[in-house]
Amino acid sequence: MFDFDKLDKIIHEKGRLGIMTLLATRPSWSFQDLKAELELSDGNLITHLRTLHEHGYVAVTKEVRDRPQTSYSLTDKGRQSFQDYLTILEQIVKAGRR
Amino acid sequence: MFDFDKLDKIIHEKGRLGIMTLLATRPSWSFQDLKAELELSDGNLITHLRTLHEHGYVAVTKEVRDRPQTSYSLTDKGRQSFQDYLTILEQIVKAGRR
Repeated sequence: MFDFDKLDKIIHEKGRLGIMTLLATRPSWSFQDLKAELELSDGNLITHLRTLHEHGYVAVTKEVRDRPQTSYSLTDKGRQSFQDYLTILEQIVKAGRR
Repeated sequence: MFDFDKLDKIIHEKGRLGIMTLLATRPSWSFQDLKAELELSDGNLITHLRTLHEHGYVAVTKEVRDRPQTSYSLTDKGRQSFQDYLTILEQIVKAGRR
């Protein structure tokens, strides 16, 4: 049928899946906006963002406006990996809705 | 946007997601067929099936034909939970494909 092993483990974990989905909907997100939307603790959000960053899926941008600000966005690699992941989700939905 | 917490953890784990998807496509599956399709070890498959069974998602049927045979199928609760889970996957795909 299809290869569940191709489900990217880095993306599939629930917290990280939430982060990747949000990042796919907007060019960039602040830490606070991600935290509010996902209802994750600071610790979990930091850990998940670090994992995604280390795998090259998420870029971290630091700016100084009125105060130092950090924002997160998908890298090209992250965007492509997420689209590939969604393709597998579509296959699962198609198979499961028979 | 949507509530990632509603992603059923019992289903979301990769091995169990594979099992639930296969069980949704056919009335029942033998252990060997599941194992061949999912390329899981006996130990992992047994553990995942037990978790799904204990949560009321999978029924276990034992029959004696030429030899004792065990087959697995979705319960009504399992089928409904999986359909609810697929609904969230559809939302993720829709959001992620923007």
